[in-house]
Amino acid sequence: MSTEKRTKILDILQSGEVGSSALVKGWIRTKRQNKNVAFIALNDGSTLNNLQLVADPNEIEESLLRRCTTGASIAARGELVASQGSGQKVELIVKSLEILGEADPEKYPLQPKKHSMEFLREIAHLRPRTNTFGAVFRVRHAMIYAVHKFFNDKGFYNIHTPIITASDAEGAGETFKVTTLDLNNVPKTEEGKVDHEQDFFERETNLTVSGQLEGELAAMALGNIYTFGPTFRAENSNTTRHLAEFWMIEPEMAFYDLDDNADLAEEMLQYLVQYALDNCADDLKFLHDREVEENKNKKEADRPDMYLMDRLKFVVDNAFERVTYTEAIDILRNSKPNKKKKFNYLIEGWGADLQSEHERYLVEKHFKKPVILTDYPKDIKAFYMRQNDDDKTVAAMDILFPGIGEIVGGAQREERMDKLTTRMEEMGIPSEELWWYLDTRRFGSAPHSGFGLGFERMILFVTGMTNIRDVIPFPRTPGNAEF
Amino acid sequence: MSTEKRTKILDILQSGEVGSSALVKGWIRTKRQNKNVAFIALNDGSTLNNLQLVADPNEIEESLLRRCTTGASIAARGELVASQGSGQKVELIVKSLEILGEADPEKYPLQPKKHSMEFLREIAHLRPRTNTFGAVFRVRHAMIYAVHKFFNDKGFYNIHTPIITASDAEGAGETFKVTTLDLNNVPKTEEGKVDHEQDFFERETNLTVSGQLEGELAAMALGNIYTFGPTFRAENSNTTRHLAEFWMIEPEMAFYDLDDNADLAEEMLQYLVQYALDNCADDLKFLHDREVEENKNKKEADRPDMYLMDRLKFVVDNAFERVTYTEAIDILRNSKPNKKKKFNYLIEGWGADLQSEHERYLVEKHFKKPVILTDYPKDIKAFYMRQNDDDKTVAAMDILFPGIGEIVGGAQREERMDKLTTRMEEMGIPSEELWWYLDTRRFGSAPHSGFGLGFERMILFVTGMTNIRDVIPFPRTPGNAEF
Repeated sequence: MSTEKRTKILDILQSGEVGSSALVKGWIRTKRQNKNVAFIALNDGSTLNNLQLVADPNEIEESLLRRCTTGASIAARGELVASQGSGQKVELIVKSLEILGEADPEKYPLQPKKHSMEFLREIAHLRPRTNTFGAVFRVRHAMIYAVHKFFNDKGFYNIHTPIITASDAEGAGETFKVTTLDLNNVPKTEEGKVDHEQDFFERETNLTVSGQLEGELAAMALGNIYTFGPTFRAENSNTTRHLAEFWMIEPEMAFYDLDDNADLAEEMLQYLVQYALDNCADDLKFLHDREVEENKNKKEADRPDMYLMDRLKFVVDNAFERVTYTEAIDILRNSKPNKKKKFNYLIEGWGADLQSEHERYLVEKHFKKPVILTDYPKDIKAFYMRQNDDDKTVAAMDILFPGIGEIVGGAQREERMDKLTTRMEEMGIPSEELWWYLDTRRFGSAPHSGFGLGFERMILFVTGMTNIRDVIPFPRTPGNAEF
Repeated sequence: MSTEKRTKILDILQSGEVGSSALVKGWIRTKRQNKNVAFIALNDGSTLNNLQLVADPNEIEESLLRRCTTGASIAARGELVASQGSGQKVELIVKSLEILGEADPEKYPLQPKKHSMEFLREIAHLRPRTNTFGAVFRVRHAMIYAVHKFFNDKGFYNIHTPIITASDAEGAGETFKVTTLDLNNVPKTEEGKVDHEQDFFERETNLTVSGQLEGELAAMALGNIYTFGPTFRAENSNTTRHLAEFWMIEPEMAFYDLDDNADLAEEMLQYLVQYALDNCADDLKFLHDREVEENKNKKEADRPDMYLMDRLKFVVDNAFERVTYTEAIDILRNSKPNKKKKFNYLIEGWGADLQSEHERYLVEKHFKKPVILTDYPKDIKAFYMRQNDDDKTVAAMDILFPGIGEIVGGAQREERMDKLTTRMEEMGIPSEELWWYLDTRRFGSAPHSGFGLGFERMILFVTGMTNIRDVIPFPRTPGNAEF
């Protein structure tokens, strides 16, 4: 049986016909057995749901059944019958069974009991075998596919921007160095500096922090493009929201102004959430119930206002509210939590950067809608954002979601050469290193816009998971690069 | 006009109605003008084809038309009329025109003349504005989308495997180091070694050479998965086939044997090529004609047997021939070029690694079909490939294409713990570093298979380009990390 074609459990549970025979393969989640019958819950990863196998100990060899322990991989052939009580439409009466790979109950770490998230992170190579992580990674896949489908259907071109780069898009500095120099014996120049001429690229290189600048180059030729690739920050932050390696989606559109940009981002976010609702029903229901369960014993005040499915519907059912930063500051300054000093960071005047607590107040309490904040003070935003006529603000936009705060950040880009270079000088961005970026303003410049969506931030939102390490298969954080 | 919504040239050329008005934006490719009329070829990247704009110098201000030079970005509004001679169905009679961004003819590098590929690589930030690179990157996008669609439709899950890793999947060694240590002053331990405890991940890390091993972990939980991400080799090779940074597609399937694996790879390759034929007709025709043109002045013997469209059809029209390595060696040993010593590497006996010239002989001369070679000598293949009963070969497969040789490499994986660890010992692969990989054989092991497709290799095949630096937007090679 081991080389014969199996049927996926997803297909059997969706359309398996009572009376037909089937060969299934998968991993045992649980086994219950008495003298007369053994029940095996089999999972093959194609769906959250297990197929119930029913085996008669008088027909299936005892020595085989004994090896059917949690985690073992088996092949089973039998007949589909209407299910008595497994919660599914059908179950499988086992006629023959083969053990593909055992799992010693004394050693296999994923026994059927509750494991802490911390423990599961230590066995990230096995955690996709759990209900929670199976669900999260199936949803993650659905979102990857939905991103490509959304942009492809709109005529956008996916561009692979470079991972190894000599530039630092944000000027933020916290990058990983990439080198082939011998660290035991770093070659030095006569002046005693690191001799990068001897390095692989004959210069200093690092891992990209964003594909935006290269994405803009492509947009100024192909029109509408998007990137979807890994980005890196060597920030020493051990929080539930930071990863050293994460994936970003960065569309860039020629001839789009800030309004067009906001329209596209809103449409994309609603599309992604609706796609999950349409295509991941079982997994989302499981994740929703899990969240309700986790909050059951919390005090009323500590429970979320909305649970997962409500938050997802909140996003697809409400047109996003568009409001300027300046208006938002007014709202926040006059808000109850500000007056009663409930915010950790009180809003005192124009110019302050907003914290997650402020963003969530605007979304959850004030507007009760997702919010697109626009026209931020130029001093808290990047050099490449288009300067407004007021000389104080730039054509930036952040999109704020319930429970999570900022999910998208974007801007109309500064397409005017003189304004751009002046701003770069003010901010100390070396223009000689970005000659190629400036060339797009030098030759055939045009208004254009773009935004960035942190993919793991989005998966946190869609799955309701609370730690970003739990929505990427193999998280990279300070001190962690196992697997 | 600059903030109004434009219509894409692709849509106008496909379905623009004569008599309707349109607003288009894009970059000028060429302008021809006399006293009575100016013709502007406008491209916006949505398609290879330009829209012809027709402007009356008596209606459109002379100072505007003067600034309409090659590379300038403009917005033009007018009326669509049946085209007289532009090769398209419609052209645009310009009623109003706005310059969005000029391109000084003295300085803009992409003047309408033939440029060498070497020169265009130096201006990789501008080359997507040429016909050739516009076509290549649109085809590249179509192939990205087709990969995701193929696997999604089959119920595979896309897994993002880590980019920064402490393991070296192939044991090949030529990896890029990733570090946050100060290279000017590398911290050392008391023994004088690099103190990686002070590094970001508190250990040595490098850029991944393959996502396969982590992909296997996911397959042993979710069933069928694929990766699609960047991989890296710090190999000092300046050839037309090597990149330091390239993208790989690596599916891994639980319960697949080598035959299933070959079936999937063949189906995928034919799907991708058919998708290009169905969705990239204009770009492929351009690339085909380009290839014919490039070979026009070559001697008969130096011209390819098949041009681009013929090679693409060769792949979709022929079932792939499956033959063992051992049979292939016999064929090659007795072949004319081997006997007449025309091969650079003569085939003398069993055990030799095949070169591109041998692979192409099998495909182009002997079988006249794409070829799947299986069951290679274990000594020329990786440690994780399943050992055959003959104790000499492993269940490997390579897929060979015309013009290009190997395009896919894969194997059934060794799922038997004892065989795997013995082989690792023989080959000096440290098993303590791969404890997590071995865990999948320890707990619920199962037969499984997978393969890798070098994405740029595939794009070379589908576009007919001959240098791998010309099929990725920003190539990384020794000494090159610009942009």
